[in-house]
Amino acid sequence: MAISLEEAREILLPLVQVLPVEKVPVEMSYGRILADALCAESDFPPFDRSPLDGYALIASEVYSATPEQPVILRQVDNVPAGSVSEIIIQGGTACRIMTGAPLPAGATGVVRLENTKVIGDQVYVFEGRETEKQICMKGEEIAAGEELIAAGVKIGFGAMGMLALNGEAMPSVYRQPRAALLATGSEIISVEKQLTPGKIRNSNSYMLSGQVIDAGSRPVILRNVPDEREAIIAGLKEAEQYDIVITTGGASVGDRDLIADVFRSIGVNVFFERVEMKPGMPVVAGVKGEKLFLGLSGNPAAASISFEQIIRPLLLKMGGRKTWYRPQVQARLAVPFKKSTGAKRFVWASWRQERGQLFVEPSAMQGNGMLKSAIAANSLMIIPANSPPLPVGTEVSVMLLIDND
Amino acid sequence: MAISLEEAREILLPLVQVLPVEKVPVEMSYGRILADALCAESDFPPFDRSPLDGYALIASEVYSATPEQPVILRQVDNVPAGSVSEIIIQGGTACRIMTGAPLPAGATGVVRLENTKVIGDQVYVFEGRETEKQICMKGEEIAAGEELIAAGVKIGFGAMGMLALNGEAMPSVYRQPRAALLATGSEIISVEKQLTPGKIRNSNSYMLSGQVIDAGSRPVILRNVPDEREAIIAGLKEAEQYDIVITTGGASVGDRDLIADVFRSIGVNVFFERVEMKPGMPVVAGVKGEKLFLGLSGNPAAASISFEQIIRPLLLKMGGRKTWYRPQVQARLAVPFKKSTGAKRFVWASWRQERGQLFVEPSAMQGNGMLKSAIAANSLMIIPANSPPLPVGTEVSVMLLIDND
Repeated sequence: MAISLEEAREILLPLVQVLPVEKVPVEMSYGRILADALCAESDFPPFDRSPLDGYALIASEVYSATPEQPVILRQVDNVPAGSVSEIIIQGGTACRIMTGAPLPAGATGVVRLENTKVIGDQVYVFEGRETEKQICMKGEEIAAGEELIAAGVKIGFGAMGMLALNGEAMPSVYRQPRAALLATGSEIISVEKQLTPGKIRNSNSYMLSGQVIDAGSRPVILRNVPDEREAIIAGLKEAEQYDIVITTGGASVGDRDLIADVFRSIGVNVFFERVEMKPGMPVVAGVKGEKLFLGLSGNPAAASISFEQIIRPLLLKMGGRKTWYRPQVQARLAVPFKKSTGAKRFVWASWRQERGQLFVEPSAMQGNGMLKSAIAANSLMIIPANSPPLPVGTEVSVMLLIDND
Repeated sequence: MAISLEEAREILLPLVQVLPVEKVPVEMSYGRILADALCAESDFPPFDRSPLDGYALIASEVYSATPEQPVILRQVDNVPAGSVSEIIIQGGTACRIMTGAPLPAGATGVVRLENTKVIGDQVYVFEGRETEKQICMKGEEIAAGEELIAAGVKIGFGAMGMLALNGEAMPSVYRQPRAALLATGSEIISVEKQLTPGKIRNSNSYMLSGQVIDAGSRPVILRNVPDEREAIIAGLKEAEQYDIVITTGGASVGDRDLIADVFRSIGVNVFFERVEMKPGMPVVAGVKGEKLFLGLSGNPAAASISFEQIIRPLLLKMGGRKTWYRPQVQARLAVPFKKSTGAKRFVWASWRQERGQLFVEPSAMQGNGMLKSAIAANSLMIIPANSPPLPVGTEVSVMLLIDND
C-alpha cells in the first residue's frame, strides 16, 4: 500500500535528530548552519565615529557658515582612524578627523573636508548645516546583546562578516549529515569501467551525491553491488557507519527487487515501501536503532524526485535547519501539460517572468531515466493528483530549486 | 571623475582571462564549471531494455489476451538485469525479463508480471494491449554523439549523474579563481583580538570571502594592515601571488586614503577610482601585468555592493562561466522607498509572491556599514539614477541572489 507524501514525511521527520555541534574557523563557515544565535557582544559602532574625512566641531557654531561668510575655528588635534583623541572640543576649536575615527569628546558634528580650507592652524568652514548628522552614533547599527543571527540560519556572506565583527573566530555550527549512497543492481558498473553488453554505469550515486551536497550534507559513495542478498548486506554494513543510508535499485516489485527483504533481514523496521507520487513511487523506508534506511528506485528520474521530496527535508532537519522545504511560487503553464496523472506529479521545469507574469515550462526531456531534464531545470513543477491534461495558462505550484528560509 | 557601472565593467571584463583547465574526480565536481562540452559516448539506453518486470514476447501474439481468454506462451529463458539472453523469441514463446534487462532478440513487447500467471513452463497472459510500448528503445533518451552538457555550465546534480553515466570519471573543469583579500585600516584588528578603544574588527575580509565563495572562487584572507604605505605595499606583495587582488579601506578621499597612490607606486595602471553607484562608489581599479587590483571601500555596505556589481562578474568570467550576471525580475515595492537618489542605487531586499504578484521590500536595516540587511536579503533591489522618492507599488528591477544561467 502506498501512503501519501505528507504521511511519509510525518513518519520519518520525527525519527531523525539534529546532529551534534562542532566549532569551525569563521573563514570556513560559509554555507554551514549556525548552532547558537549570535548576540552582539557590544554596541556597534563601539563609539561615536566619523563616517567621513573632515573636522569634528561643535555643530551649533558653524550652522550659519557659507562660502562668503566662513566660520573660522582653530585646529587642536588630528585623529586618524584607530586612534583616540585626548582633547575635548571647546568653543572655537575643531579637530581633524578621518573616516572611522572616534569623535573627540565635546564634538557634536563633523564637517566634510571638501567644505573646509586650512591656513596654518586655522580651519575655514564654508558650509556648516547638518554637521550633526555626519556622526555614526555608538550603537546606531547594533545594540549590545541584540540578536543578530538566529540559530539554524545558513551562514552566508553577511553572516560571515557579522560573526567576524563580533569576534566569533570559531562559531558553533551543526555537524553536516553524512549520507551513504549504495547503488544496487547487477546491470550497474562503476564509472571508470568500459561498457559491456547489458550493463550501464552507476549514475545514481553521483546524481544523489550532488543532491546531498545541495542539502548541505556530505555524500559517501560506496562501491556498487549486484542484486544479490549477501552483496547488498555487505554494502549495508559499510553504509550503516554513516548518518543515513540511501540505496538505489531493487525497490520495485519483482524477483530481483530485494531491498525491502534485505532491510528486514538485517533488522530494519520497514514502515512503507511506496509513496503516492510520480516519479519516485518506490521508496522503502525503515529504521534500525536510530538510523534511517531509505531504498530508492534504480531509475534516476524516480530516485532524484524521491530524494528531493523525502530525504532532503530529513537532511535539513539533521543539519540543524529550521525550515525544511524549498520556497514555492505560483506560475502559469507556458505550454500545455498533456499527461493526465493519478498521483501527485513532480516535473523538472524552468520558470521565468514575462510581462509581469511568472511562467513555467517543463524541461524538454521528461520521463523515466532522463537526467537531461534535471540539468536544465531551475524548479520542480507540481501537478496535483487526479489532474486532467492541463492547457496553456493553467496556474500551478512551482518549487524553486533554491535554498532560502 | 566617476564612471558608470557599465563603463567600469566594459573596461575590466576584457582584461581578465579564463583560467586554465584541470581534471577532478567526478565525485568532487559539484559546483565546478565544466570546461569541455559533454557529448554522449554511445546511445542510451545502450540496448532495447525492459522498464519493468514481466515477460518479453511478440506483441501481436498477445494483443487480444483477456482474463477470460488468456494467451498461453512457453517460457524459454529468464534474463535478470545485467545479463544478456542468447535465445531468440519465436512464435508461442516468452522470456522472463527484469527491469533494466536487455530485450531478447525477436521480442517486440513486454507484458507486466502482474498481468501474467505461470504454471510450469507455461505463461498465461491476461492483458496484452500496448505491450510494444513497454520497451525503452536503444538511444531513446540519448543519441551517441549528442551534446549533453555545454561547456561553461555549473555542474549540478543532474550533470554529475550525466557525467558518470558517460564514464567521465575525471571531467575537465576550470580552475577556480583565487582572490586575495587585504583589509587596510589602522582602526582594524583581526577577528580573534579583544576590542580596544577606537578599534573595530575586520569584518570585510570575511564578508567578501563569502561573496568570493558564492562566485565559485577561492578566497585567501591576508593579515590586515594599518593605513601605512609600507605595510600596504608588503600586503600587496603577498596578495599579488593570487589571481586577483582585492583590498578594502583607504579608497575614499582624505589624508589616509592611500590605496590609489600605493597601487600606482607599485606599478599598477589605475583606470578609475569611483563608479557612479550607491553604495559602493569608491572603487580603485587598475592592472599590473595581467593582474587586476581592486580597492574597495572600508565600509562593508559599500564593499559588498562594489563586489557584487563589479568583481563577481570578473570572477565568473575567469572561472569559465558564459553568463556573468544574476537573473532579474520586476517586482512592486511593498513599502515606499523614501530616499531620492542621484546615482543608481542597490538595496538589499527580500522578494516574495502574493496574490500572483511579485513584491519586494528592502531589508529592515540599510545604510552605511549595515551587515544586518545583507543577512536577511534574498535579492538586490535596483533604484534607477535620479529617482524621486518612490511610492508603494512602484515597479522596480530586482536582482535575485541566485546563480542560474
